[in-house]
Amino acid sequence: MKTMLLSISFSLFISSVFAQVSFSTDPISVNEKRIEQRIFELAKYGRNEKGEGQRVAYSQGDIEGRAYFMDLMRQAGLDVRIDFAGNIIGRRDGKDPSKKPIAFGSHIDMVPNGGNYDGAYGAITALEIIEVLKENKITTNHPLEVIIFQNEEAGLVGSRAMAGRLKIDALGQMNASGYTIAEGTKRIGGDPDRLSEAARKEGDLAAFIEIHIEQSKVLESQGIDVAIIEGIVGIEDWDITVTGLANHAGSTPMNDRQDALIAASKLVLAVNDVVNSYEGAQVGSVGKISVPSGAPNIIPGKVEMSLQMRDLSTEKIMKMYTDIEKRAQEIAKETNTQIAFEHLNLSSTPTFASKEIQEKMIQAAESLGISYIKMQSGAGHDTQEMAALGPIGMVFIPSKDGISHNPKEYSSPAQMAKGANVMLHTVLLLDKK
Amino acid sequence: MKTMLLSISFSLFISSVFAQVSFSTDPISVNEKRIEQRIFELAKYGRNEKGEGQRVAYSQGDIEGRAYFMDLMRQAGLDVRIDFAGNIIGRRDGKDPSKKPIAFGSHIDMVPNGGNYDGAYGAITALEIIEVLKENKITTNHPLEVIIFQNEEAGLVGSRAMAGRLKIDALGQMNASGYTIAEGTKRIGGDPDRLSEAARKEGDLAAFIEIHIEQSKVLESQGIDVAIIEGIVGIEDWDITVTGLANHAGSTPMNDRQDALIAASKLVLAVNDVVNSYEGAQVGSVGKISVPSGAPNIIPGKVEMSLQMRDLSTEKIMKMYTDIEKRAQEIAKETNTQIAFEHLNLSSTPTFASKEIQEKMIQAAESLGISYIKMQSGAGHDTQEMAALGPIGMVFIPSKDGISHNPKEYSSPAQMAKGANVMLHTVLLLDKK
Repeated sequence: MKTMLLSISFSLFISSVFAQVSFSTDPISVNEKRIEQRIFELAKYGRNEKGEGQRVAYSQGDIEGRAYFMDLMRQAGLDVRIDFAGNIIGRRDGKDPSKKPIAFGSHIDMVPNGGNYDGAYGAITALEIIEVLKENKITTNHPLEVIIFQNEEAGLVGSRAMAGRLKIDALGQMNASGYTIAEGTKRIGGDPDRLSEAARKEGDLAAFIEIHIEQSKVLESQGIDVAIIEGIVGIEDWDITVTGLANHAGSTPMNDRQDALIAASKLVLAVNDVVNSYEGAQVGSVGKISVPSGAPNIIPGKVEMSLQMRDLSTEKIMKMYTDIEKRAQEIAKETNTQIAFEHLNLSSTPTFASKEIQEKMIQAAESLGISYIKMQSGAGHDTQEMAALGPIGMVFIPSKDGISHNPKEYSSPAQMAKGANVMLHTVLLLDKK
Repeated sequence: MKTMLLSISFSLFISSVFAQVSFSTDPISVNEKRIEQRIFELAKYGRNEKGEGQRVAYSQGDIEGRAYFMDLMRQAGLDVRIDFAGNIIGRRDGKDPSKKPIAFGSHIDMVPNGGNYDGAYGAITALEIIEVLKENKITTNHPLEVIIFQNEEAGLVGSRAMAGRLKIDALGQMNASGYTIAEGTKRIGGDPDRLSEAARKEGDLAAFIEIHIEQSKVLESQGIDVAIIEGIVGIEDWDITVTGLANHAGSTPMNDRQDALIAASKLVLAVNDVVNSYEGAQVGSVGKISVPSGAPNIIPGKVEMSLQMRDLSTEKIMKMYTDIEKRAQEIAKETNTQIAFEHLNLSSTPTFASKEIQEKMIQAAESLGISYIKMQSGAGHDTQEMAALGPIGMVFIPSKDGISHNPKEYSSPAQMAKGANVMLHTVLLLDKK
């Protein structure tokens, strides 16, 4: 695969490739064993007596895990600080003080009873890049930053604050730790009263890149090493209310019912039909449904349900919504019910990865003989917030059985090392500019 | 219509008809105004400051309503007692002490925020029969009993106890009054420790009949005065659990989902299809559905739902269940989920009305020029428990818009009087035997 790297390098950045990506010897590489060992080390923080990973942001385990991680960062030579939002930032100076930092990182908080790879793998890989540069005595032109965002799992809290987009009313929200975001931010060394000072400006970063487990099984089932992310989907949410007529389930004849659940069931299937009728990777889900005050002996008079759709194109999402809304009106007519949609104010717009960063990631993968496909990220990540500060990119590695947010999360050391090497060499390629 | 009564009477009970159902003058009749006035009087008990009817069993309103009603019963000449189960029994002696009582009644407790006719109309009609007999100085051959069952709404509590079928563990159940059945039974003058002494034996009653609002709009929409009930349906209940795989609603592609709610939605529609595919008055309903720990961004991994079917034929219910179960297995296969049914131990077997009592009710209706149809009762009633003690029968009158268990319950004074007259004359016809 060296030939391939050579040919690409010649056409794009002949001189620099010779300087730092060695052709005569093997390219520098991450330490596979160290990565896995740190996954296991970090996993100890927040593990309860039942062996479950409960490193929810702001919990004692999160605080201890952060302390452990900051210690590693300092040992790797980083200058570590906590910003007012509670994010951990580790800086390594480059040769050229006029250049903006190339940043990379992820998060180490987890969902309740979560797994050891979601977030943690990206954080450990970010640190690994620093370790390898240090071991190889490489100083980049750009300064580098390892960023560990706080509380990703309850709404990208740290990255939103750094992007200047965290809404003030989010501070009162409580997460599974039992602390509000304001209280929790204090617990981890931030200052909620000075949150706005954590916000950075557009152009502050030369690049932000992140690696993450796929949380699905596309890579695994296709036997591909990494996915180069084209973008992070936009998300649109609706609440749907179906109104029929609650009535006695014994005395009301079948032909005289206005059963809201019959209508809702048709609508669930219509959502699935509509979303599947489009070409592409869009998704749409009804994740919640309930019959308020429902009972086995009452015909459902009201059903409440959620609708969430995601795609890289907001236009496509809204087109699907129009189709679903039309189907809903047909269903309402046919079932003698009313169906109302409320578009929720939770939209997250699609974020596109920088074409240039995608190209660098592909170059890195190809140079290392690592197979890749392009993919969109259906899940939200801190990286999408960093797009407010500079160009972004993401890499995914395979998740065993596609499982995430679950103790069964797993990626092999070899899979993790391949992804980390793509990240390492992407940083080096980005540093040429 | 007198001719018709005459012809029927001649064939069945020539001598007695001449004695008490007058041909030369109008037949005796209930007092339409008194019935409605008592509906309004009784409605005051348990009405809260918002004007809502909250005469839930064991509440202060229930206790006061019962006191008011017992007072009326005594004024009508009944010998009133409360049995150990808390049922009110008002007795009027007949001419022949060797005969078993002809009993009639209903309940005066209501569901929270209930209506003024469900139960109350049957109780007031039972008392009205006594009033009319008293005013017309008629003494029946059989003794008569007006029975006001306690706590019909939370599971036919009083009538079950009288039938000797109230399970001991029901005593600990709390109803909407905040009292358990044991506590509540004490509050209304019963003795839960001596409950078994409230049980009566098979053959103890010559007949039990009850009149009730239809709780559906079949009579209203067809413009019919009363329904003669052929039986009270059996009820079978199942809990259904659909198991898919909970997964990230963003990162999991549409073609790689095991969405339990898609399967559940297909099953809700299949239940409806199967129940509608049979001839008859059977009903089947999914009244409850939920996605435990469901969220808009999680593909439903589990859905729990209820299934209840009712019919006069348990065999038909079980045939429908077999069809539904078969459809469920097809759906499970198609959606890559599992669907499990648990048959609940709540069965109530169908209760058939006595053919003879139905005939007497028809005779009474025809003699009075009151239109009728036959119907099965899809709702449970105290009468079904009384079937353990003797032959039973029921009459329904129209409910405006089919509404019940709701403040909007309404039947007109004329509708109530027609039904009450059918009851009155049925008692007189039964008394001939």
